[in-house]
Amino acid sequence: MTLFEWDIRVYYEDTDAAGVVYYANYAKFMERARTEWLRALGVNQRELLAQSGIQFVVRQLQLRLRQPARFNDALQVVTAIKNLRPMRVLFQQQVMRDGVVLAEGEIEVVCVDAATFKPVMFPEWIQNKLHGNFE
Amino acid sequence: MTLFEWDIRVYYEDTDAAGVVYYANYAKFMERARTEWLRALGVNQRELLAQSGIQFVVRQLQLRLRQPARFNDALQVVTAIKNLRPMRVLFQQQVMRDGVVLAEGEIEVVCVDAATFKPVMFPEWIQNKLHGNFE
Amino acid sequence: MTLFEWDIRVYYEDTDAAGVVYYANYAKFMERARTEWLRALGVNQRELLAQSGIQFVVRQLQLRLRQPARFNDALQVVTAIKNLRPMRVLFQQQVMRDGVVLAEGEIEVVCVDAATFKPVMFPEWIQNKLHGNFE
Amino acid sequence: MTLFEWDIRVYYEDTDAAGVVYYANYAKFMERARTEWLRALGVNQRELLAQSGIQFVVRQLQLRLRQPARFNDALQVVTAIKNLRPMRVLFQQQVMRDGVVLAEGEIEVVCVDAATFKPVMFPEWIQNKLHGNFE
Repeated sequence: MTLFEWDIRVYYEDTDAAGVVYYANYAKFMERARTEWLRALGVNQRELLAQSGIQFVVRQLQLRLRQPARFNDALQVVTAIKNLRPMRVLFQQQVMRDGVVLAEGEIEVVCVDAATFKPVMFPEWIQNKLHGNFE
Repeated sequence: MTLFEWDIRVYYEDTDAAGVVYYANYAKFMERARTEWLRALGVNQRELLAQSGIQFVVRQLQLRLRQPARFNDALQVVTAIKNLRPMRVLFQQQVMRDGVVLAEGEIEVVCVDAATFKPVMFPEWIQNKLHGNFE
Repeated sequence: MTLFEWDIRVYYEDTDAAGVVYYANYAKFMERARTEWLRALGVNQRELLAQSGIQFVVRQLQLRLRQPARFNDALQVVTAIKNLRPMRVLFQQQVMRDGVVLAEGEIEVVCVDAATFKPVMFPEWIQNKLHGNFE
Repeated sequence: MTLFEWDIRVYYEDTDAAGVVYYANYAKFMERARTEWLRALGVNQRELLAQSGIQFVVRQLQLRLRQPARFNDALQVVTAIKNLRPMRVLFQQQVMRDGVVLAEGEIEVVCVDAATFKPVMFPEWIQNKLHGNFE
């Protein structure tokens, strides 16, 4: 199983008055990492939308917050595929600082028709790319 | 069991290029509703922090996205307490439009010492307020 | 000249680690107020886009931050039209707390063709509505 | 005069239902670039706060939006110092894509006492660092 690692820097915009990263922003950090993984696999989401009329949307999200991240922290998001079906991928992601897990999540992403938001199968070449990073 | 309902209007800031509400923003909508419920119960979070050095933080979040909300939608967030312990509350929340559930979530909130982020018990008067809306 | 007032509550999502409202979020507060003013005038932006293919976009923004707003503050956004042309409106907006100006801005909004982002004239009935609140 | 360049990738979180980057987010992009410039100059804002009780806040912001950026765009933020005083810096910033200016801004940053938010002078070693990149 392949792991993909993406670096995130914490800016003021990411924090809240409790002095820590606002919890919903971990979902943003995790999405940035998934987007970059797709890019690294050669999947251009904008072309996919323009040419095939499909896009990826989050269907379910489970997030556990363990320790707070703070302004200026250098974080790493580690991403793996936990489960893979023709119509959905389950990602497992961890947000880490110096080897310590601060937050972890499971995110189910589905492929939808951009006009109707109805689920469709991932194009076969994308399924193959994902499979290559799953097994 | 008491339900608390809070209205949310969808602005451009809440949407993304897919034309719908960005999924992590449902977590914000749900937090607004919990904050307003606390306010309605007489809990002033800023005084609580200033006087007792405690604050509420989200420990776990489970979110299911069913149907997209769009720019200009008038939404209702319905909130209930699903479980209540001296150190944590489990909220069940639904984001609705015209009686249809668009998103639903379970959010575990704990009370922490603001300096150390270590969990502490909710003050007894707050436990009592929450209990009154649970049973 | 008509003034439009809109209430905003400050939530955790609006603040940053400095303990105050993150400065770019005043731009969001001001947009919410402009959106609500348009709604009060009977302008439904979603219908306008669907039926006429036009939308309003910010072309210029000038923002002065005077005093910080904080978590839980009850704010009022006061909006007036400072200048009005067939292709652009200049709004003057103030974010206030208990009669004190915390932030003020001038925002130039233009009407564009949604497909090309090229400026077009506001529909005449909207120009008339705006004029009625300008003079 | 020194220019500092910082790369930004546009994610879904940055866009809105008009299909483009939400205008207030250019302010975030510009702040990321200023933060990274300070870091490159050896200024650690978190240490500065912990050791000297000071922080930098935006006092004024002027933003001009020329052309829309879109999901997946690779942007560059170019930053220069336009004016420098003991108590404030005026930054000039441009957000570019492939050499074309999409947005430009002038941002006045002041140094404040973190407890009172009253302006104070930049520490001399920081003034010197900034001067070295101004003349």
